[in-house]
Amino acid sequence: MTAVRTIHPLDELTSSEHSEIVKLIYKTFGQDIWFKAVQRIEPPKSQLAPILDALSDGKDVQNVMSKGPSRRAEVIFTNKKTAHIHTCVIDIRSLRVEKHEEIMSNHKPPLDVFMLISLEEKILSHPATFEALEQLGLPKDTPICADPWIYGSDEFGNEPAYFSFLMHMRPPGAKGDKDAFHYSYPLPFVPVWDVLQDTVARVDWVYTGDDADGMKHTWKEEYNAGLFQPYEYMPHLQQDYKCRPDLKPLQVIQPEGASFKINGREIFWQKWSMRISWNVREGLVLHDIRYEKRPVFYRLSVSEMTVPYGDPRPPLHRKQAFDLGDAGAGVTANSLHLGCDCLGEVHYFDGAIALPDGSQLIQKNVVCCHEQDMGIGMKHTNYRTENSFITRDRQLVLQTIITVANYEYIFIWYFDQAGAIHFETRATGVLSVAAIDQGKVSPYGNVVAPGVLATNHQHIFCLRIHPRIDGDGNTAIYEESVRMPFGTREEKDLNPKGTGFIVQKNMIDKEGFFDLNPLANRTFKIINTKKVNAVSQKPHGYKLHMPTTQLLLAHPDSVAAHRAPFAQHHIWITRHTDNDEDLYAAGKWTNQSRGKAGGLGDLVSREQSTEDQDIVMWACFGLTHNPRVEDFPIMPCESLMVSLKPADFFTRNPAMDVPTSNQATNASKLHHSEHSQFSCCKD
Amino acid sequence: MTAVRTIHPLDELTSSEHSEIVKLIYKTFGQDIWFKAVQRIEPPKSQLAPILDALSDGKDVQNVMSKGPSRRAEVIFTNKKTAHIHTCVIDIRSLRVEKHEEIMSNHKPPLDVFMLISLEEKILSHPATFEALEQLGLPKDTPICADPWIYGSDEFGNEPAYFSFLMHMRPPGAKGDKDAFHYSYPLPFVPVWDVLQDTVARVDWVYTGDDADGMKHTWKEEYNAGLFQPYEYMPHLQQDYKCRPDLKPLQVIQPEGASFKINGREIFWQKWSMRISWNVREGLVLHDIRYEKRPVFYRLSVSEMTVPYGDPRPPLHRKQAFDLGDAGAGVTANSLHLGCDCLGEVHYFDGAIALPDGSQLIQKNVVCCHEQDMGIGMKHTNYRTENSFITRDRQLVLQTIITVANYEYIFIWYFDQAGAIHFETRATGVLSVAAIDQGKVSPYGNVVAPGVLATNHQHIFCLRIHPRIDGDGNTAIYEESVRMPFGTREEKDLNPKGTGFIVQKNMIDKEGFFDLNPLANRTFKIINTKKVNAVSQKPHGYKLHMPTTQLLLAHPDSVAAHRAPFAQHHIWITRHTDNDEDLYAAGKWTNQSRGKAGGLGDLVSREQSTEDQDIVMWACFGLTHNPRVEDFPIMPCESLMVSLKPADFFTRNPAMDVPTSNQATNASKLHHSEHSQFSCCKD
Repeated sequence: MTAVRTIHPLDELTSSEHSEIVKLIYKTFGQDIWFKAVQRIEPPKSQLAPILDALSDGKDVQNVMSKGPSRRAEVIFTNKKTAHIHTCVIDIRSLRVEKHEEIMSNHKPPLDVFMLISLEEKILSHPATFEALEQLGLPKDTPICADPWIYGSDEFGNEPAYFSFLMHMRPPGAKGDKDAFHYSYPLPFVPVWDVLQDTVARVDWVYTGDDADGMKHTWKEEYNAGLFQPYEYMPHLQQDYKCRPDLKPLQVIQPEGASFKINGREIFWQKWSMRISWNVREGLVLHDIRYEKRPVFYRLSVSEMTVPYGDPRPPLHRKQAFDLGDAGAGVTANSLHLGCDCLGEVHYFDGAIALPDGSQLIQKNVVCCHEQDMGIGMKHTNYRTENSFITRDRQLVLQTIITVANYEYIFIWYFDQAGAIHFETRATGVLSVAAIDQGKVSPYGNVVAPGVLATNHQHIFCLRIHPRIDGDGNTAIYEESVRMPFGTREEKDLNPKGTGFIVQKNMIDKEGFFDLNPLANRTFKIINTKKVNAVSQKPHGYKLHMPTTQLLLAHPDSVAAHRAPFAQHHIWITRHTDNDEDLYAAGKWTNQSRGKAGGLGDLVSREQSTEDQDIVMWACFGLTHNPRVEDFPIMPCESLMVSLKPADFFTRNPAMDVPTSNQATNASKLHHSEHSQFSCCKD
Repeated sequence: MTAVRTIHPLDELTSSEHSEIVKLIYKTFGQDIWFKAVQRIEPPKSQLAPILDALSDGKDVQNVMSKGPSRRAEVIFTNKKTAHIHTCVIDIRSLRVEKHEEIMSNHKPPLDVFMLISLEEKILSHPATFEALEQLGLPKDTPICADPWIYGSDEFGNEPAYFSFLMHMRPPGAKGDKDAFHYSYPLPFVPVWDVLQDTVARVDWVYTGDDADGMKHTWKEEYNAGLFQPYEYMPHLQQDYKCRPDLKPLQVIQPEGASFKINGREIFWQKWSMRISWNVREGLVLHDIRYEKRPVFYRLSVSEMTVPYGDPRPPLHRKQAFDLGDAGAGVTANSLHLGCDCLGEVHYFDGAIALPDGSQLIQKNVVCCHEQDMGIGMKHTNYRTENSFITRDRQLVLQTIITVANYEYIFIWYFDQAGAIHFETRATGVLSVAAIDQGKVSPYGNVVAPGVLATNHQHIFCLRIHPRIDGDGNTAIYEESVRMPFGTREEKDLNPKGTGFIVQKNMIDKEGFFDLNPLANRTFKIINTKKVNAVSQKPHGYKLHMPTTQLLLAHPDSVAAHRAPFAQHHIWITRHTDNDEDLYAAGKWTNQSRGKAGGLGDLVSREQSTEDQDIVMWACFGLTHNPRVEDFPIMPCESLMVSLKPADFFTRNPAMDVPTSNQATNASKLHHSEHSQFSCCKD
């Protein structure tokens, strides 16, 4: 341990930086403060990129590092009295408020878990709640719980800061166990909390009929709490729980340890290097991703996700979460546990966020880093000699998991040995449900338990891909595979038998949006036109592989659609400049946003040139999730995988030096069957 | 070991059955026989299904099993003198030829490895080959090799049985090592072999220019064997080979053994049961797939794959392989090796095929069966208590790998604990290449090594899904998620804020084809209308998840397109009856087929009713592969994944009894970093 440590410009705030900043904020703005974020601001790319290059080249940058670039922090807080958002930029070295803005327009701050817990307490003891229970014929002391749900928005005009709650009974048989599963006991009312007035603004009632009942209030006649059944998931609460007995242990053992090296926030693995950071909104962010020191991506992050629901009947029509903008992948991250969330030799990274009072919460183990065997990486058998060449597809895994009330999202970055990066989302957890009358079915969802309607919904993710393919100045293109005209083309008979097809290239010359077209094999690439592959004579590039998925179903004229332009196209290309606040696909302030929050719609309207520029590619994909009965009570993971693959970035397969797969290393075991009622090869 | 063994109707031929049949064939048809297949015929479903049900119920079926159904074998052979195909049906018990057909139409038999090896020898010593080398200015004794390529077809009319060869030099530096990589040394001529005449019919020359050169023969002026470079992949042949040193071992250890039980050809794992079988054409076939004894799928198989190439210049325009029909996934299967092709505790199944002389070749280890950890299966964290429920996604894996000359295909079936079945194809191996002049590029492919053009091509797979969802009589439907009209719908104001969307169901009432439409979230399901889910009130079903991929690019009027109607639509629904020979998407005889080989195009033209019938669903998907430089010399796996997921087949998530993931069982290890040049949380 040397006495002097140098802070990397991408390192998060140290504890003392954090506490000095919080002291400064209290000193400057008084005590009515609810902190939402205290975190370092990334230096502008023009300043940071040269430092990253110098560090990668092993140059001595101690001097630069200690002097500049300026180290800044962002503080976001709300004033408890006005509910206004305040944002500050702090110069950390001089401990000075460089910039302060009180957001006077009707933007609402993101929620946080501490607020939810405090609001739930208030809801559970509020007279409006007791009154609603009474109207349902339920005793006032019925054990219930209030699940937080972002209010959403259904008006283009201004509204107070609201918060809504989906109400459930606590399972009568679970004797107050706090882990009992309440989602099979939905209550058909939604208290709406007025944040500034600090009280229940109103109670909305939920339609519990079917399509034929339309907007008839049927809850009074039909609501039947006796219909519900326990659907416990925790083993100690499952009735007559019998764990299936025949699943034998499977262990990932790395006798010589992991193949990666960790250096603070830096990761080295199999010719890859990268740096991670953590913030309250995006959670895990990857920076400065290089292969053999060649820059590939400057920054990779999950930018946003919108989760709109398809039941149009008020008040549930308003259900549209922006899980990153409304809540945050950092603040909702799980602490991961060894041997539960990942196997093998695991390195954990911590995160840190600000608590409402400004103190720094160290979030233990929010990112796990480990290796995984993904089956065969490549194989060729020489049929003449029967000799094989085979390698395993070992990958480096960076995983983070968030819990947004009922739902879980698993975000996983994979790095492989052949230069590709993959990003997977897995959706799991608990479906968001509503009450439905006995015997009814609904066009808006599926009945997944007696009296429980799981509403059809979408999850549309937006991945922000900030490339640096072999250096600065990149261009986006898309290619399509196109059938040639049959027979003669101009003077040359180029397709005499009708079998020809070619690749058509389309340069993307300015900011805009694009859709996938799998029937044309439309493939988006990011290339560096200044670097030409010596073998193929084509520019160095990476291509995007992405599942083609349904776009936003909300009507284009709806508030819901105006809030999420990003979800209406698969691919967006924008240009980045140092002054851009361009991290967030749906804008910075999504909570109760009304279509004026900025984001991709605004960015592309600039129509700036994107050829040989500092471009950003945004990849939007998702699930339209029409729930199955099998998705309840806990939903098996639904997975989506996106890949970024080198395309003429290397001059040959970069994985040709991967050790071949062999039994001496892999120590597999032969299984012998002792049972042979029928024999196939003897008689 | 009891004295009497009962043969299951799906068991392949025993060695003695096989040899008795071969003796019978020789006795009946003389000695001019080249065997292509000797294998048991599956009993008709009407006979087999009741036996499978009785066995599943544990009923004593010994009586039925020994008496009936009749046990039959199929023999396919060619007459060496006429090159005609003969097919026979043999009654095994009475050892009698029940049926014999000499195929007089111009169908060609599939190839086999033994034929390829024998033909290569003839090509390498043929005067036409020497003459071609001479024209290229190469010595007659230049070490070369001749890679087999199916001749393909470019005429609707009759042609002799041909076979073609892609020619390569052997790497000059590899000193005759048979594992040297010849694909970076393409020669621009294609000898065409006339099978019946047993000689070279002609030598076709390959265009080696670019698009501007069109059909100009440039090989004489430009062909430059000095351009080529070694691209060895085998470690002992790679120049200055340095295995990357920092990949540490990763072992899958199952201290208590595997969780599956094997009983002959039957597999039991985690409430699943199934039976496998093996044949020369389809390779691995799955039968009688049940979950907790409930039938789910009657039969699952890879039916066909077509691989058309996009270079329209003769003779390479003819390159269109049908890897199952032209060759066969059984005959080309790799023998898998412990600790190479799969990790953990592995059970291997053998296969058997007939050699050309009729003797039975036992193919060792053609299928591996093992378990894999696929990450998190499901998770929910109660944010109020921070307690988590988490399970691993353990899957049963059945893997088989085929080598079709240069290419490898890995076919993997996965069974998960939540009732889903997944099928993955991985394409790897070596790209099919041609010579290209120095400095030229081509619109038909990518230059992946000096002088080496890797041609753009497609792989279109067809999966045959024969369902038995909760019993006989199934129906196919597709659903779409559809935006509702904004505001008032009829008399009811059902979508006041424009957020509503619903699921539209479309019954498929007769045989036909359909395309995916991911923008409508079009989802195909197989349902059993007679079995209604008690919770959702919807029929029990399984749904298909499949990537939407480009269909066949060959012009619809081309011979290539007529040979592969299946590749022109994503989904086909047909009806199965006992008399149907409906296993093969492109017909039984694909080699040199000319659009009259039968297959899906013919089947759906019957337009039979498919409601509550014995239906078959065919799922077609693929890659349009425009090669990257990184795909050479060995191609990192390109993967495609199809899933069959229960959709209201169960009354809740069937995996709720899976043991939760814990460190005591998983024995993971914490990684500690010793390097900390930069510190993120201290200062």
